Amino acid sequence: MKTDIQIARETTLLPISAIAEKIGIQNDDLIPYGKYIAKVPHQLAEKKDKKGKLILVSAITPTKAGIGKTTVSIGLSLGLEKIGKKTVVALREPSLGPCFGMKGGAAGGGYAQVLPMENINLHFTGDFHAITSAHNMISALLDNYQFQNKGTDKQLKQIVWKRVLDVNDRSLRNIVTGMGGISNGIPTESGFDITPASEIMAIFCLSKDIEDLRNRIDNILLGYTHSNDAFYVKDLNISGAITVLLKDALDPNLVQTTEHSAAFVHGGPFANIAHGCNSVIATKVALNHGDYVITEAGFGADLGAEKFLNIKCRAAGISPSASVLVATSQALKMHGGVDEKEIKQPNAEGLRKGLENVKVHVENLKNFGQTVILTFNKYYFDTEEEIQLVKDWATDMGIRFAINNSFVEGGEGAVNLAQTVVDAIEEDESKPLSFTYELEDSIETKIEKVAKSIYRAKDIELSNTAQLRLKRIKRLGFENLPICIAKTQYSFSDDAKAYGAVKDHTLHIEDFVINSGAGFIVVIAGNIMRMPGLPKEPQALHIDLVDGQIEGLS
Amino acid sequence: MKTDIQIARETTLLPISAIAEKIGIQNDDLIPYGKYIAKVPHQLAEKKDKKGKLILVSAITPTKAGIGKTTVSIGLSLGLEKIGKKTVVALREPSLGPCFGMKGGAAGGGYAQVLPMENINLHFTGDFHAITSAHNMISALLDNYQFQNKGTDKQLKQIVWKRVLDVNDRSLRNIVTGMGGISNGIPTESGFDITPASEIMAIFCLSKDIEDLRNRIDNILLGYTHSNDAFYVKDLNISGAITVLLKDALDPNLVQTTEHSAAFVHGGPFANIAHGCNSVIATKVALNHGDYVITEAGFGADLGAEKFLNIKCRAAGISPSASVLVATSQALKMHGGVDEKEIKQPNAEGLRKGLENVKVHVENLKNFGQTVILTFNKYYFDTEEEIQLVKDWATDMGIRFAINNSFVEGGEGAVNLAQTVVDAIEEDESKPLSFTYELEDSIETKIEKVAKSIYRAKDIELSNTAQLRLKRIKRLGFENLPICIAKTQYSFSDDAKAYGAVKDHTLHIEDFVINSGAGFIVVIAGNIMRMPGLPKEPQALHIDLVDGQIEGLS
Repeated sequence: MKTDIQIARETTLLPISAIAEKIGIQNDDLIPYGKYIAKVPHQLAEKKDKKGKLILVSAITPTKAGIGKTTVSIGLSLGLEKIGKKTVVALREPSLGPCFGMKGGAAGGGYAQVLPMENINLHFTGDFHAITSAHNMISALLDNYQFQNKGTDKQLKQIVWKRVLDVNDRSLRNIVTGMGGISNGIPTESGFDITPASEIMAIFCLSKDIEDLRNRIDNILLGYTHSNDAFYVKDLNISGAITVLLKDALDPNLVQTTEHSAAFVHGGPFANIAHGCNSVIATKVALNHGDYVITEAGFGADLGAEKFLNIKCRAAGISPSASVLVATSQALKMHGGVDEKEIKQPNAEGLRKGLENVKVHVENLKNFGQTVILTFNKYYFDTEEEIQLVKDWATDMGIRFAINNSFVEGGEGAVNLAQTVVDAIEEDESKPLSFTYELEDSIETKIEKVAKSIYRAKDIELSNTAQLRLKRIKRLGFENLPICIAKTQYSFSDDAKAYGAVKDHTLHIEDFVINSGAGFIVVIAGNIMRMPGLPKEPQALHIDLVDGQIEGLS
Repeated sequence: MKTDIQIARETTLLPISAIAEKIGIQNDDLIPYGKYIAKVPHQLAEKKDKKGKLILVSAITPTKAGIGKTTVSIGLSLGLEKIGKKTVVALREPSLGPCFGMKGGAAGGGYAQVLPMENINLHFTGDFHAITSAHNMISALLDNYQFQNKGTDKQLKQIVWKRVLDVNDRSLRNIVTGMGGISNGIPTESGFDITPASEIMAIFCLSKDIEDLRNRIDNILLGYTHSNDAFYVKDLNISGAITVLLKDALDPNLVQTTEHSAAFVHGGPFANIAHGCNSVIATKVALNHGDYVITEAGFGADLGAEKFLNIKCRAAGISPSASVLVATSQALKMHGGVDEKEIKQPNAEGLRKGLENVKVHVENLKNFGQTVILTFNKYYFDTEEEIQLVKDWATDMGIRFAINNSFVEGGEGAVNLAQTVVDAIEEDESKPLSFTYELEDSIETKIEKVAKSIYRAKDIELSNTAQLRLKRIKRLGFENLPICIAKTQYSFSDDAKAYGAVKDHTLHIEDFVINSGAGFIVVIAGNIMRMPGLPKEPQALHIDLVDGQIEGLS
């Protein structure tokens, strides 16, 4: 089969105005970035009478290679278009770091891609750069505040704000800044996270409009004074300047799929320390312009869907009409105890055992009130027997099921999935969202509810640090924020090696981070990487420009 | 008078396609970034039969507040349009750092601006962000090389490559990276420069095409091996990936002036440690599409024009038909010994004395073979008497002279200047460039020639460090590169307080930096700031979004 970039290159793109027209966006409203990309005004997210049906694509617990959620999301949108539904897919923007590190791109795959994939995978419309700038501008202004107020009461005792860059660079994880003498700042332990881990990214993706963006920026916690008072961005009086840096980026990016349907690709927060979905504004613009809107949440449903529903949907006042759960034979086998090196080989027994993992995710989604469709994301090495096995199991369990083969066949390979989803919504649309916890619950109760009902833990345990931090959260009055649990994506537990449907484990809470700008409390359950490193052979070695065309992205 | 941003906002912009059409660029060739900005293919820089006349705008030794070169450059282009000449102005892109620090913008002023000024002053088309990304991607890949080869022969002994961010942040000048244990890299002294100081920026601005860009990236010196061999980007095998990151940025940005003539704003290297002018590609595209092309070189003529002519023009094979030297009453008085606090007050004696500074710059430009026009850049507080004094002096000296009042009057205020320039070129076009030094000269000879003939020094003195570095430059075979002297812009000497026409001084060379990618040797004569700090009251405090419009840029 052709590579992703070959397929992308062979697709004749339509002008972006033609894509916009399909979903009723006027040419005058477009802010073009080249011929095939346009921003549309974020004001298009404002309420309209007509609302599309939202469909969430989530997954079972993934393998290290991922599970193809983006490909399924795009494929499903192509399938829906094939059966005559006006569909828009809303996705996250890829980060440059992993693109040049391990992955080489994140814009779908095969015949289910968003295009132009080279641009989307590289600088795109500059949103990540704007977020990087805004974040580091705060850092510079904060350090300048410290420098100008050195030795006075105003100087902060502790700073909790770091810097970000959109690159994989382990050397920047822990740094000491302000070295080299008194005119060069105050020596301070600091570090860089990757841009998707920036609180600005989370804020950007949760903001309803410019005003909301500005208020959230105002509320970012930067550090503590000598009298232990919280010090926010608003105390620096710079929210206007930071909002100005983000103003254009807030307009969502319209592109097209391999079959010329509309796609919004906008924002890209991490799915562990943040909520892992594209911007609220892009989702709302999509809902205002499509009959069906597909969106995706990062990692498995225990992390991605949980946060999508409890954080994003709650904040945005939206709710999916159905949830699609993606499974692959590889992930199933991994959960069934098959060695990772052998998960591409047929192994019916392993596969069958692995279905326990699916069962828990389906139950979890149903507990939210969601109508669930299980989809088997087909790979070239999958056998008919194994697919039948999964299908039979789903039938026995009363779970709607369809194969996705859009990687190889484009929309044609997802027609059955699309019809299954449409039927599910028509016959049995999701109920109003039943959140896992109430905002009024205490932080411990919130964690306990997620840990027990989603992760199937028997209890939670807070470290001493976590207990201390929790007191501070209460003192500062942030107990009513939703929680964003950062734990490994490879297990229901905090142990990355505990596959399958592990239960009755103890969830260990190491620490809390107050993201009062984004509007959630990050609950740290295990070691979370905020700045990836590069592998021995980075993808950058394979990225090249040959006869004016880019190689090495996928 | 209205503020810059008020004037900008009240100007009804033409669609960028209309601007392109004026200079014969087809709509199909445009890569739009919104309605009023477009990139044009860098291939438009390739040779054509028709070539416009190039006019360099430089200045006498400036004050801390600058001297208005950008405003004069834009104003002159407006004046030329007024007298019926098809004119294009080619300028540098502003940096975000100073914009939020001291200056609040750099896109001309008053009725001589390039528009949309808010975009140009902020993220614009993302060129600086692409350069920041490319630079830091090299840093990450280099540190990863060190990490992966730790303890082996391959690990470098010394690294000379740092990181960059487009922000004013003194805390990042000197940092220690790789802290926090063995999985987080190798502890290393490092630091961040501001993006205009990146060698990638200089490379970007000197490259003729993509191939040249790639070759220059290949030749960037990153450090030294244990056997003292030089280690280049090509040794990492990543030039393809870095070129990919810069590919789109290399297309020049077309915008419009306050009077709807064409302007290219592209690239923005420092004028001390780099050559301080917009990209070669933008200048060449402008020359292919205008009858007259105005461009600007940073700081005073001793730094900016010298580097423009000896480095950029030599590399690009271009040559100005005339040079315009900008003077202001404030700068003249400063050079005439008037206290900086009083330079806005009338002071004929101070003004007269300050003309000695003009004389040296005019002589210098004539030594290059340039036809020189002196222009007095008028400020609201200037008196008729003082202007007449300068005019009379110029007449006595046989120097062509004209007032520029385009800040207040737009093109109308530069008609006389424009006509003076056109006449000068028609009567007495510049001779072929007579460079200050030959590339075959030794590095010491090159410095001596610039120091004596341009700076009017009596001799040069190399520190011990500089002498050692010079040996290395010779050993590595870089002696035939041009030199880029980094010294204070406030004096002909290396003493920032020695105003006027100081001569017979000694130029102290502290160090050398090999910019083998950019293709010049940076000669460090004094303390050069590569990462500015923020002032006590940064401009960011005044930048705001009010009713959807940006305030605080100028």
